[in-house]
Amino acid sequence: MRIIVAGGDGFCGWPTALYLSKQGHDVTIVDNLARRKIDEELHSNSVTPIASLEDRVAKWKEVTGNEIRTFIGDLNHYDFLREVFRQVKPEAFVHFAEQRSAPYSMIDREHAAYTQTNNVIGNLNVLYAIKEFAPECHLIKLGTMGEYGTPNIDIEEGYIEIEHKGRKDTLPYPKQPGSFYHLSKVHDSHNIMFACKIWGIRATDLNQGIVYGLHTEETKLDPMLVNRVDYDGVFGTALNRFANQAAIGHDITVYGSGGQTRAFLNIEDTVRCVEIAAENPADNGEFRVFNQFTEWFSVQELADRVQKIAHEEGLDTQVKKIENPRIENEDHYYNAVNTKLRDLGLEPHLLTDDVIRDILLTAVEHKDRIIAENVLPSITWK
Amino acid sequence: MRIIVAGGDGFCGWPTALYLSKQGHDVTIVDNLARRKIDEELHSNSVTPIASLEDRVAKWKEVTGNEIRTFIGDLNHYDFLREVFRQVKPEAFVHFAEQRSAPYSMIDREHAAYTQTNNVIGNLNVLYAIKEFAPECHLIKLGTMGEYGTPNIDIEEGYIEIEHKGRKDTLPYPKQPGSFYHLSKVHDSHNIMFACKIWGIRATDLNQGIVYGLHTEETKLDPMLVNRVDYDGVFGTALNRFANQAAIGHDITVYGSGGQTRAFLNIEDTVRCVEIAAENPADNGEFRVFNQFTEWFSVQELADRVQKIAHEEGLDTQVKKIENPRIENEDHYYNAVNTKLRDLGLEPHLLTDDVIRDILLTAVEHKDRIIAENVLPSITWK
Repeated sequence: MRIIVAGGDGFCGWPTALYLSKQGHDVTIVDNLARRKIDEELHSNSVTPIASLEDRVAKWKEVTGNEIRTFIGDLNHYDFLREVFRQVKPEAFVHFAEQRSAPYSMIDREHAAYTQTNNVIGNLNVLYAIKEFAPECHLIKLGTMGEYGTPNIDIEEGYIEIEHKGRKDTLPYPKQPGSFYHLSKVHDSHNIMFACKIWGIRATDLNQGIVYGLHTEETKLDPMLVNRVDYDGVFGTALNRFANQAAIGHDITVYGSGGQTRAFLNIEDTVRCVEIAAENPADNGEFRVFNQFTEWFSVQELADRVQKIAHEEGLDTQVKKIENPRIENEDHYYNAVNTKLRDLGLEPHLLTDDVIRDILLTAVEHKDRIIAENVLPSITWK
Repeated sequence: MRIIVAGGDGFCGWPTALYLSKQGHDVTIVDNLARRKIDEELHSNSVTPIASLEDRVAKWKEVTGNEIRTFIGDLNHYDFLREVFRQVKPEAFVHFAEQRSAPYSMIDREHAAYTQTNNVIGNLNVLYAIKEFAPECHLIKLGTMGEYGTPNIDIEEGYIEIEHKGRKDTLPYPKQPGSFYHLSKVHDSHNIMFACKIWGIRATDLNQGIVYGLHTEETKLDPMLVNRVDYDGVFGTALNRFANQAAIGHDITVYGSGGQTRAFLNIEDTVRCVEIAAENPADNGEFRVFNQFTEWFSVQELADRVQKIAHEEGLDTQVKKIENPRIENEDHYYNAVNTKLRDLGLEPHLLTDDVIRDILLTAVEHKDRIIAENVLPSITWK
């Protein structure tokens, strides 16, 4: 299948591109390299030393014989995107190419506006490009479980049947996103739902949980194929960030009470979920939503588990509660449905101690690269 | 009260600015005059000959002695908006300053992107300006009943209590907007809800129905104060558009079966609703939603009523069904709640035959200005 992986140089996109290439798909990466530029803006870096995209795909070809084409450019530049569609004629468009950090979107007005413009208009352009140049192309769009927020009822997969005053309808699940970034994903979902309805576009929205881990079978084939790992207060997410804090003997910092519960999955499941979506496309006109996660944990629980493994590895670190820079419920109900991907064949990699150990030891291996002052939150929601 | 009316040169904004000024409020109009520029782009016009904003406010001062300050600029230019906030120190910000035509947003990709960027980022800027310069300022934001779409259950005012698998929560009402314009309003609503939560902003979202009529007590005080009336296929809305078609002896064109049911209100109620919202502000941190309409009608019903009055006035016109340029349900359930504004004192002006006659006769008075080829739809959803 001819598959475009937009954002294919990023944390989820790179291993997904390799995995799909390994399965024999004809993969094209589209990326504007924004994530690398943001590293410069924030004086941050990946714990793992990542090669340039050019070197990455050259190494991939050397190791596997498989070619991955690349286009460096921005989805917000429609002339560029049009040319990509004309040349590639994609059958699936995997869309990871959005600004994906909640704290980054909360830095100030300009970062909020950048995040929403970049994400919403970029995605709108993809919808128009599919309509105009590849109407049968299946859009596989990365959403987030964070779109739902923490309602006091079970979270369903995209839609909910509501009985109200004696009548019934199945409606889009109400959204309560918790940052300007999460809001941009909600805006995207609404735009896509509409495009499916009026243009007959086929789309799958993957409402992904927080991803942990870094290696996949493919990224392990050569050091030059290694995936990026973020550990800082802006792009680092719970678990990966905790492991990096532990690696340098820093406190594992939990925001607020730590009672916040979130959905998680291993990066190895991310790549498989995208494959499942691609192999089982949505129907024409269908806006399909999958909740893409395998387990959920409270933040406190994760911190404790990382600390335990760190101690086993001889690393001295404490779990410390700090003031929550975000405004969010710290004590709430959480129960979310995630059966659709499993029904289509997903076999979850669960969060074992060995998985945590692997993340931790990778962080230890590269701990000289960790910039200590970056591991604490620097951006507040206030 | 110091009130900014953003979009105060437009169809809803101008009569609202006058009405609030008449009630003794200190009114400032902010407008980028985009609506007048779009007339040039579309080779269209207002049926009524409207004066320049400068002449309008000068006449208002002459007639009433009341001063209305004006700032010509764009909410998307934050330097400008910041300066407006610094000078005015608003206690209420009435936000009409968005691209408001569904067909305009559907012209092509550029118009869709313009509509969403202009509306969403402009509104985001207003939220930041309130946070930074006037945290007690009450945002009174124009939304639309079109955000809800046509669900098969009753439409509530912004929120709905959902019982699901034995648990209950009150959540944002699910939205199914029908154009990139309507989507922009949904995006706004989500952004405002979040800003209220994290920054304690007070906001009222007025989900307004389709507005008909043109005159208010204030706009009738002098010909130079007359309101604009749109009749074309892009900005003209049902009823006003039908009256103008009838005025030139054109068929009254109903899209599809005409079974589409929509919520409506008189422009005289629009101005009063805004006053009610301003006088009864939302609490700090509250995102309050009012459904702002007084009655609902099917499109067919309205067309028939306009035809009947037209015949009484000796105008020969027929109701004709044409292919629906939109993609929408033409046969659907519709029942929407609108008690909050009435509970706060709204006394509706209902759609009597005399109201229809007044709109029709105004159109007849200015019928030489009507550009006949503009009364049919030129933009499709496909």
